[in-house]
Amino acid sequence: MKLIRHGASGDEKPGLVDGRGIRRDLSAILRDIAGPALSRESLDRLRRIDPESLPVVPEDRRLGPCVGGTRNVVAVGLNYSDHAEEAGLPVPAEPILFSKAPSCLCGPDDAVIIPKGSNRTDWEVELAIVIGARASYVHANEALDYVAGLTICNDVSEREWQFDRGGTWSKGKGCPTFGPLGPWLVTLDEIPDPKALNLWLDLNGERMQSGSTGRMIFDLAQLVAYVSHFMMLEPGDIITTGTPPDVGMARKPPRYLRSGDEMRLGIDSLGEQRQRVVAFDDWTAKVSAGEPTN
Amino acid sequence: MKLIRHGASGDEKPGLVDGRGIRRDLSAILRDIAGPALSRESLDRLRRIDPESLPVVPEDRRLGPCVGGTRNVVAVGLNYSDHAEEAGLPVPAEPILFSKAPSCLCGPDDAVIIPKGSNRTDWEVELAIVIGARASYVHANEALDYVAGLTICNDVSEREWQFDRGGTWSKGKGCPTFGPLGPWLVTLDEIPDPKALNLWLDLNGERMQSGSTGRMIFDLAQLVAYVSHFMMLEPGDIITTGTPPDVGMARKPPRYLRSGDEMRLGIDSLGEQRQRVVAFDDWTAKVSAGEPTN
Repeated sequence: MKLIRHGASGDEKPGLVDGRGIRRDLSAILRDIAGPALSRESLDRLRRIDPESLPVVPEDRRLGPCVGGTRNVVAVGLNYSDHAEEAGLPVPAEPILFSKAPSCLCGPDDAVIIPKGSNRTDWEVELAIVIGARASYVHANEALDYVAGLTICNDVSEREWQFDRGGTWSKGKGCPTFGPLGPWLVTLDEIPDPKALNLWLDLNGERMQSGSTGRMIFDLAQLVAYVSHFMMLEPGDIITTGTPPDVGMARKPPRYLRSGDEMRLGIDSLGEQRQRVVAFDDWTAKVSAGEPTN
Repeated sequence: MKLIRHGASGDEKPGLVDGRGIRRDLSAILRDIAGPALSRESLDRLRRIDPESLPVVPEDRRLGPCVGGTRNVVAVGLNYSDHAEEAGLPVPAEPILFSKAPSCLCGPDDAVIIPKGSNRTDWEVELAIVIGARASYVHANEALDYVAGLTICNDVSEREWQFDRGGTWSKGKGCPTFGPLGPWLVTLDEIPDPKALNLWLDLNGERMQSGSTGRMIFDLAQLVAYVSHFMMLEPGDIITTGTPPDVGMARKPPRYLRSGDEMRLGIDSLGEQRQRVVAFDDWTAKVSAGEPTN
């Protein structure tokens, strides 16, 4: 099952994508793809609905982040062995965790805004886990029972603020629009092998990142279990699981995002995202003029 | 105005404390002390209510965290000049930020649970800011307009997980019950001078921490402005503003929390908290036996 949230930012409605790729509206069935709607029982209930009975959502309707009510976005650093090699860093003995402010989440095709004063805004295609049930002190062998599904997150990052502004990485990870999430929340039964998914990111049509979840150091079950020992995870929480090689800061010379750039990124079975990059001042000018921003 | 949330965990009702110190229920007026209820207009509306017209809340009713719907708990490190001196660290040039998982928030008098496997759980009395309106790129001279009020947060911390487990501080800051918040959300008009508040923490009746907000390096307005340049703050978000000297790890020898300890902490104008400390296994045994845990 592929679940979506469609409509204006902050007012998204629930929906799904049927077997023929047609978007259908779930507003009559549930309030949002959030909280209790993410439980195993709720997902089973949704699976029993005949999609043909649901209203069609117009093709051009904006997609929001594929899950609502997220209170905690936990991100994993340096979780691909080839990315660690590239960075010349040792493979971590245990997962590196940091947080993204939940207000950074946006739709998969929304504009990504380069924040005021930023010189080093960068991309990171990542596989993201959506939590479906409260998880605390969970063992790896049962951890996937607490997962509602998977999606794509572009873990957009401001490198100077992440590394050079004192304290932890929070400053460079949670700016508005730094968390495009979607297009779909894909339930696990639709993903044949989460350990063999290709993931990629193109900048202006040129392949930048290319990797496989097979190179993850800590797998999905290990990550859910690990995080749940340090904090209680709740339905709608996100764990974004690290990026493969070739982010902008690792390139020689480094390449950071500029106003007008276009990112496209995707993961096998999980769809694609497309974001126009806009500098903060250009973005505010467009908003003031009532022009589209993505 | 002093706002409270009362009732069972996860099912708290809104309320206030009247001029005579009597708790009153606001359930008939609003759904929760959360989101839009924290706006200036909403607070003004609540101020016009005659408290005598509201039902009394029983004295022994549990208090929950004084604000609901919190999605982001931003914490400030090393923000007291005397604490920096004590630690032998330079005064930071700009605020050090980290995050606490929002699922760590609990009531001001709830039990604090020492997590499974923890050896170094520690206390930190802190003044916490509750955000009342969406704040992005805010200037310090207008920053307090975005604040609903102030409260107390015990920024409970696991030192080994904070410093020695790789990555950022998140691992030692967001365990369940690591964020007692309250008792009251106190609006700014009730606080004569936020820069001259005494704050203190007692362990088993012995004074451990004693400080004044006058020793803060970055004041409340500066912190709100600063954070809002890195992430968008939303109503109900918390900024907890750092701790004065004499946390457990700074003592010689260090003193960490043990099952059975009692913490009491308070800040001028903001009330007091009291937490019984319980080891995880003792806590689960009490819950299983249906015994009170605080």
